[in-house]
Amino acid sequence: MFGKEVYAGRRRKLLELMQDTGKEGQRGIAVFLGNTDAPQNYRGNDYKFRQESSFLYYWGIDEPGFAAILDMDSGEEVLYGNDVDIDDIIWMGPQPSVASKGERIGAGRTAPYSEFFETVRKAKTAGRHIHFLPASRYYNTMMLSQLIGCPAEAVRKTSSVYRTSPDTGSCNTEAAASLELTRAVISMRLIKEECEIEEIDKACEIGYLMHTAARQACRPGVKEQDIVGIMEGVTISKGWGVSFTTILSQNGETLHNHSHHQTITPGRLLLIDAGAESNTHYASDFTRTLPCSGKFTSRQRDIYDIVADCNELAFQLAAPGIPYREVHLAVAAKMLDGLKALGLVNGHIDDMVKEGIAGLFMPHGLGHNMGIDVHDMEDLGEDLVGYDDDQKRAPQLGFGSLRMARSLRPGHVITDEPGIYFIPALINKWKAEGTDHGMVNYSALEPYLDFGGIRLEDDLLITEDGCRRLGPHRLPIKAEDVEAAMVR
Amino acid sequence: MFGKEVYAGRRRKLLELMQDTGKEGQRGIAVFLGNTDAPQNYRGNDYKFRQESSFLYYWGIDEPGFAAILDMDSGEEVLYGNDVDIDDIIWMGPQPSVASKGERIGAGRTAPYSEFFETVRKAKTAGRHIHFLPASRYYNTMMLSQLIGCPAEAVRKTSSVYRTSPDTGSCNTEAAASLELTRAVISMRLIKEECEIEEIDKACEIGYLMHTAARQACRPGVKEQDIVGIMEGVTISKGWGVSFTTILSQNGETLHNHSHHQTITPGRLLLIDAGAESNTHYASDFTRTLPCSGKFTSRQRDIYDIVADCNELAFQLAAPGIPYREVHLAVAAKMLDGLKALGLVNGHIDDMVKEGIAGLFMPHGLGHNMGIDVHDMEDLGEDLVGYDDDQKRAPQLGFGSLRMARSLRPGHVITDEPGIYFIPALINKWKAEGTDHGMVNYSALEPYLDFGGIRLEDDLLITEDGCRRLGPHRLPIKAEDVEAAMVR
Repeated sequence: MFGKEVYAGRRRKLLELMQDTGKEGQRGIAVFLGNTDAPQNYRGNDYKFRQESSFLYYWGIDEPGFAAILDMDSGEEVLYGNDVDIDDIIWMGPQPSVASKGERIGAGRTAPYSEFFETVRKAKTAGRHIHFLPASRYYNTMMLSQLIGCPAEAVRKTSSVYRTSPDTGSCNTEAAASLELTRAVISMRLIKEECEIEEIDKACEIGYLMHTAARQACRPGVKEQDIVGIMEGVTISKGWGVSFTTILSQNGETLHNHSHHQTITPGRLLLIDAGAESNTHYASDFTRTLPCSGKFTSRQRDIYDIVADCNELAFQLAAPGIPYREVHLAVAAKMLDGLKALGLVNGHIDDMVKEGIAGLFMPHGLGHNMGIDVHDMEDLGEDLVGYDDDQKRAPQLGFGSLRMARSLRPGHVITDEPGIYFIPALINKWKAEGTDHGMVNYSALEPYLDFGGIRLEDDLLITEDGCRRLGPHRLPIKAEDVEAAMVR
Repeated sequence: MFGKEVYAGRRRKLLELMQDTGKEGQRGIAVFLGNTDAPQNYRGNDYKFRQESSFLYYWGIDEPGFAAILDMDSGEEVLYGNDVDIDDIIWMGPQPSVASKGERIGAGRTAPYSEFFETVRKAKTAGRHIHFLPASRYYNTMMLSQLIGCPAEAVRKTSSVYRTSPDTGSCNTEAAASLELTRAVISMRLIKEECEIEEIDKACEIGYLMHTAARQACRPGVKEQDIVGIMEGVTISKGWGVSFTTILSQNGETLHNHSHHQTITPGRLLLIDAGAESNTHYASDFTRTLPCSGKFTSRQRDIYDIVADCNELAFQLAAPGIPYREVHLAVAAKMLDGLKALGLVNGHIDDMVKEGIAGLFMPHGLGHNMGIDVHDMEDLGEDLVGYDDDQKRAPQLGFGSLRMARSLRPGHVITDEPGIYFIPALINKWKAEGTDHGMVNYSALEPYLDFGGIRLEDDLLITEDGCRRLGPHRLPIKAEDVEAAMVR
């Protein structure tokens, strides 16, 4: 948790950004709904609590049962929550009062949770604008849907200023979340503050420790699941937990593989894509691909070096003013160049880039924003977050999945994660459908059908004059460094 | 996952149990909704998937996006789910077909998910009974609410057979979940099968390993959070994860303490209540209380021995035909006897038990059912699960929180978890309100106000002639054994 001036400052800035949404006295209220506990198998047996990210950003309170309202006409800020009773004390221990929690985040006033509902209802009856962010969790979706009187689908979609009809109290739009508020929040959260960067550095250090532990545990005969436990144990000892479900698999060609039942086998590759969330809920996200035998085969090394070069290229190119979509395309060109040298593709590099041939080998984007969410703010709208107003998402496989295309600015935190995968079902599909315009050498690909996949990922902070890799230590990435670091 | 005969057999038995719910041809359908992914911070970044427990019990499928219907008139069983497309293969890898998944659990027929909605709507239009269990997750609550046309609150409450009005299609009851189906499911899941007991034994072994790792890590200067990570890492390496959020605290007097920021301090007690969920989703649940210095003080030892004796007494008494509520009361008597010997309470033991004096020191019940859920089936209704039809919940603190009161039967799996806590806020409240009828010696309690709490928990299987402790190894519990096992 940061100091009260951080949260108060953010809310002040948000208020300023929202000044243009309406005339004085007609701007309405901004409603922030914190998360409740999420049942794992039954209510009361909940997953580890995770606060709603924007609530955390503006209001700092990291526990269930809170909401807040920013009155954009009067400037009043109110934090809503209930004080504990004797039953709560028996089960959860004595707790600070809601008033003292409000004090810690510089909120002008606190009130019981029930007043939150009343205030929203009153605003609705008075026909005031009610701005809120698209809901993520199902419970919040239900709550907002009931409170605002809109279908569940509508409270997840953004449109320009939402207003209930004062006459009927019913929803007059199919998209009830506020586009203006969403844009304002995105513009703030995209540019990380110094105190946030410190926390991301910490999360990256935990990521370093978890990948180091994994590398030390990786040897033939060990179960994948054993390694996952060792890694995730580190994240719980040092932070909140994993920032996303760990991907750890010898079938690296499956991009998000969450089954870990296999045994580490000599000659295969182990792809590990995993990150930590710090105790303050900032994410890290790293991928390394290890040789299970301790040494890459010559074929593995060929592909590995291309991916490592691509990772390095993106790091070299990322700088203020450069659109990250251009970096994605430069990486695609570099990758195709390497694959061409191996005889796997043929044609002019520019033509191949244009035809999206890289997508066969890397059917995902080069990277995404990272912050309080590992895919930062993804629920606020992928395109709103990752694309400038004048940018459009490409239709091609891979390039079309690019989550961060924006022109880079100091304070952006992004991932740099090129990969090359040999996905039999996809290769067969392209071959059958002629998607490659004759640019893929399918017979040369045959020996690669059991190759798996390689991905190498670092986290970058855009600085005034370029970028730096986040975290105090960098995981070994050059093939020879990885081999030297493996325990045999 | 068990063999297909297990799931087919359970569904056959359920069908038999439901025969009495209506005349032939008028019994209706039983609808089972599997869980979907639960968003952690945004949709797509989900908590580790956990299947709905009763869906797992009857249909065995351990992945999101499935539903099933048991037609209780025709006997037809249908599993609903969607086969994967090329996008799914890229991200999740090739998957077995829904048809082959149905085959593995002996389901007569499989169909795409959309047919599930159609089938329920048709049954509704035809005015057939639609039986379903009270929904746990919010998403399932929303889905059922929309599908059945009842308010969200209604799909969480059980009543005798629910029926939609064929005329209006609207909900004609405030409680729409089926009491008959709920009772039938509870009657089956309460009595564990051999194959389930084997899995619970496995979960208990993981619990043994996690507590052993914690004990080895517990020494002055270590952070509580470090120990939690070590423990939870074990559960992820060897099983699905924790069966509930780990309770690990030197403030053991807080029953469910999930904050782990303190440093292990000489002279204090560390209470650890934690369990694992096996890869097949059976739970374990153990509590031990360790002396942070490696040796109990004399005052700690006095209280520890009382709790250990209570734990042993419950084990000795638990047997078929004995109501567990009687065991709770016998433990309360034993506890008061020990506290009386220390001069902390005074009066006749029977009177003190009757007045619920034990509740001041143990404001929770002696134990609960355990199985696929650590509090087994809690969302089906605590009283329906834990109380026989002729039993009523007591109003007293502690005794009133007893989750398992039933007359014990072979196959019941329950916890045995007495505890003694010194909770300043509760002691002050009783003193101020005279709740103790003069039976508590408050001045003698003064030196205990910073004591913390002790709980000792094992998991029991009721056998034909008594009970056995679950798991191949028992964690040290006698004070001298605990001290000998501490690393110093």
